[in-house]
Amino acid sequence: MQRALNVTRERFADWYQAVVRDADMAESSPVRGAMVIKPWGYGVWELIQQELDRRIKATGHENCYFPLFIPLSFIAKEAEHVEGFAKEMAVVTHHRLKLIDGKLQPDPEAKLEEPLVVRPTSETIIGDAFSRWIRSHRDLPMLINQWANVVRWEMRPRLFLRTTEFLWQEGHTAHATEAEAVEETRRMLEVYRSFAEDVLAMPVIAGEKPEHERFPGAVNTYSIEAMMQDGKALQAGTSHFLGTHFAEAQNIKFQDEAGTLTYCNTTSWGVSTRLIGGVIMTHGDDDGLRLPPAIAPRQIVVVPMLRDKPEDAEVLAYCENLVKALSGMTAFGQPVRAFLDIKKIKSAEKRWNWVRRGAPLIVEVGPRDAAAGQVTYMRRDDLRDGDKIKSIAKPRVDFIEGAVQLLTEIQAGLYAEAKARLDGNIKTGLTSFDDVAKYFGEDDDSFKGWVRVAWSKPQGAALDAVEQKLKTLKLTIRNAPEDQPQSFGTCIFTGAPGTEEILIGRAY
Amino acid sequence: MQRALNVTRERFADWYQAVVRDADMAESSPVRGAMVIKPWGYGVWELIQQELDRRIKATGHENCYFPLFIPLSFIAKEAEHVEGFAKEMAVVTHHRLKLIDGKLQPDPEAKLEEPLVVRPTSETIIGDAFSRWIRSHRDLPMLINQWANVVRWEMRPRLFLRTTEFLWQEGHTAHATEAEAVEETRRMLEVYRSFAEDVLAMPVIAGEKPEHERFPGAVNTYSIEAMMQDGKALQAGTSHFLGTHFAEAQNIKFQDEAGTLTYCNTTSWGVSTRLIGGVIMTHGDDDGLRLPPAIAPRQIVVVPMLRDKPEDAEVLAYCENLVKALSGMTAFGQPVRAFLDIKKIKSAEKRWNWVRRGAPLIVEVGPRDAAAGQVTYMRRDDLRDGDKIKSIAKPRVDFIEGAVQLLTEIQAGLYAEAKARLDGNIKTGLTSFDDVAKYFGEDDDSFKGWVRVAWSKPQGAALDAVEQKLKTLKLTIRNAPEDQPQSFGTCIFTGAPGTEEILIGRAY
Repeated sequence: MQRALNVTRERFADWYQAVVRDADMAESSPVRGAMVIKPWGYGVWELIQQELDRRIKATGHENCYFPLFIPLSFIAKEAEHVEGFAKEMAVVTHHRLKLIDGKLQPDPEAKLEEPLVVRPTSETIIGDAFSRWIRSHRDLPMLINQWANVVRWEMRPRLFLRTTEFLWQEGHTAHATEAEAVEETRRMLEVYRSFAEDVLAMPVIAGEKPEHERFPGAVNTYSIEAMMQDGKALQAGTSHFLGTHFAEAQNIKFQDEAGTLTYCNTTSWGVSTRLIGGVIMTHGDDDGLRLPPAIAPRQIVVVPMLRDKPEDAEVLAYCENLVKALSGMTAFGQPVRAFLDIKKIKSAEKRWNWVRRGAPLIVEVGPRDAAAGQVTYMRRDDLRDGDKIKSIAKPRVDFIEGAVQLLTEIQAGLYAEAKARLDGNIKTGLTSFDDVAKYFGEDDDSFKGWVRVAWSKPQGAALDAVEQKLKTLKLTIRNAPEDQPQSFGTCIFTGAPGTEEILIGRAY
Repeated sequence: MQRALNVTRERFADWYQAVVRDADMAESSPVRGAMVIKPWGYGVWELIQQELDRRIKATGHENCYFPLFIPLSFIAKEAEHVEGFAKEMAVVTHHRLKLIDGKLQPDPEAKLEEPLVVRPTSETIIGDAFSRWIRSHRDLPMLINQWANVVRWEMRPRLFLRTTEFLWQEGHTAHATEAEAVEETRRMLEVYRSFAEDVLAMPVIAGEKPEHERFPGAVNTYSIEAMMQDGKALQAGTSHFLGTHFAEAQNIKFQDEAGTLTYCNTTSWGVSTRLIGGVIMTHGDDDGLRLPPAIAPRQIVVVPMLRDKPEDAEVLAYCENLVKALSGMTAFGQPVRAFLDIKKIKSAEKRWNWVRRGAPLIVEVGPRDAAAGQVTYMRRDDLRDGDKIKSIAKPRVDFIEGAVQLLTEIQAGLYAEAKARLDGNIKTGLTSFDDVAKYFGEDDDSFKGWVRVAWSKPQGAALDAVEQKLKTLKLTIRNAPEDQPQSFGTCIFTGAPGTEEILIGRAY
């Protein structure tokens, strides 16, 4: 059988790389660990940005921009933060290059007095601004977001999933009370959950991270976790309640209504270009990417079947009219993104390019279609009937009339498919660690999904032991889902009465 | 007379700083030369991005994202490029920090084999990708743009105008022929010209830069130049025809239709957050900023005059309805951005805040307005009658009906005012350098505008002499405007027959 890719999901890691490459999403750059995001990949990111930005603003946040460089002394302020980030930062030490002995190199005379760190995250530099901006309870809540690039040195980079430089948004807020800050933390978690599900068609489970997986300096960290097609978890977004840790380290105080100077409670939350990796591993198939229409840079691609003959002009005119009619309609609150592909390559090559890139609807128009007033199209989410490609012929008017409905169906269908996979692959009923070990199997990397078990939230050394035990099976605790039962089984680690249910799985 | 600022345009540099600060646009950061762009300033940037991005896409370009870090060896490839940029780059030399003797510092064991430069511009790293992406004439033209942060070390930083880190877009294109590349260079210059004039209401003169002011590595550089209220020029955007310089340095070749391998001709072009500085110095007055409605984050601000009394509820409801009605209308192709300011500070303070920030229309609604079904508003572009603030009362329905027209008028009025200043302050008729020297006066920094004179385009040592001569008067050649006469006077520098008219002035 002819496939659009030369590798299937059975070799999942290779398949992922092939999709990223063959769908023109991104590529490795000459700088180790940093990626070039290509137009099709960046187009997806722009649509993610646009819609998420709308939701972040709708919840009262304003965008700002803070410096890329952070003084070393800022990073040193919050102790846990140092511990968590110090190991992976790019450090700027010079501000000039010079030709010395014919070789361009950092100019020794332009060495910085204090090295600058390329932001791995911006709590410290934004906290510094907050300490100047916030005076009174009238200035609160302070609700800020920024879209930016960040750098965390990666030894084992993987496009979109783990890169030295990535793009993200980071929200930073300050509040008068702990309750308000906790509410904000959860509100943004919910924004991420609904965004992932409604827009990316990627079902997730929202919940609280265990103590040892918290953001460095956070009181609580919450995450959304998505299940990839190899059964592994992808942490797709996090929201942190920081308590007064950063406020104390950076002197972020306000005068309350009674006139007392009090520390603010702060939060931070972010999602990144990693989401694109999640979309690929949630929806891709053995023919390449399948994009949910809400984030497809081109939702309907029209390929004219040209043959360098006089009737080409008629076919082209027919296609132009079709694209024009489609572009005048609205799907997901925006004009339909219809595109006429007139690149000078063979139409069969075009078809396969758009299949690999995951355009939701691919329309092919030949002279006979044009003459008969019809179109022939493929649904990318339902491409094949056995080995054959499903081509559907329809009168032009019917296709146009039904196009928005089709896009909506594809969006819903991709979600339903992923949701069924998530729901069907969370194993419950395991009551001991041995059960869990047996379920996953030590060297077995086949699809296992996750398990949902009870634990007693051990702390300190007991928690370290749990972490180590799981690590031997390449497992981690993903989160404690928001919906918890009334009562719990025994803790699979300690045998003590459980106090919480958690998800355990392998993860990216 | 009470002014919203405590300094007037007579002390222009101080006034500029005051506007940036008091209009909440930006502030200096703890990192020397880098700025924090605050919500009001960033909101302006978002609107600039949105509309310029639309125009860049409408001319066929696609967005991408390339790495922040550029290997040192890449920068070294294009000789003039090294010369031009080597002096002002941030250099990353380590990828980890370590606590040594209790002090956090770059880990000597994590020193990079090859230092990385934080991009000052991306010709080299994008050229590297082009050399991989371009194979055949079918891949051309390659039309790419990116929105990104860049770093050029600044010893004398000035918010928005000259900062170590700034935000910009940079377009990079490759073409099969020189003619096509030149056409692209000029097309994008025209995009910048019309954008500056139509959207920023900032009239500019588009033209070609003289040889010694070209981008390092360019064959030709074109610019748009705007006149600030102190008579100085602001280079507000540039477009470069790079010939085959970068293609040769980076091996960007294509197979033409005959099968011959040929170097591409490339271009690059960019505008930055510097535009915001231009908007401030073009439109600001002694009460602060005046924003053209097309880029005002809030176009109509409604301030309810509340007094902690029962009738407040009625006033608020009246204002909410007003904002809702205004938000339902369309101006400049987008929903009107109307805003209800319910912050808990005095309404007089609110009024002055919005005056300083330059909101185009400020509406104040008290109990009497609500009862009478009217509004009282101020036009920021026509704020005063002598010393007094002009408040205009109008029936609510009339105000709503006329609001879009008002915004359009303000946009046009700001442009017309700036256009009259530009047109009225370009001195012609000077025929010798002595005339020019006398006109500007050696130590006279008062408003002089620019001069338009003929020159014979001297080169080499003769051009160096011209540059030095002008420098003693703090003057530079801005550009040779696009519209040139049929014949020219004598060259003011050499006395030879002129071959071109150029603009000379002081500049930012």
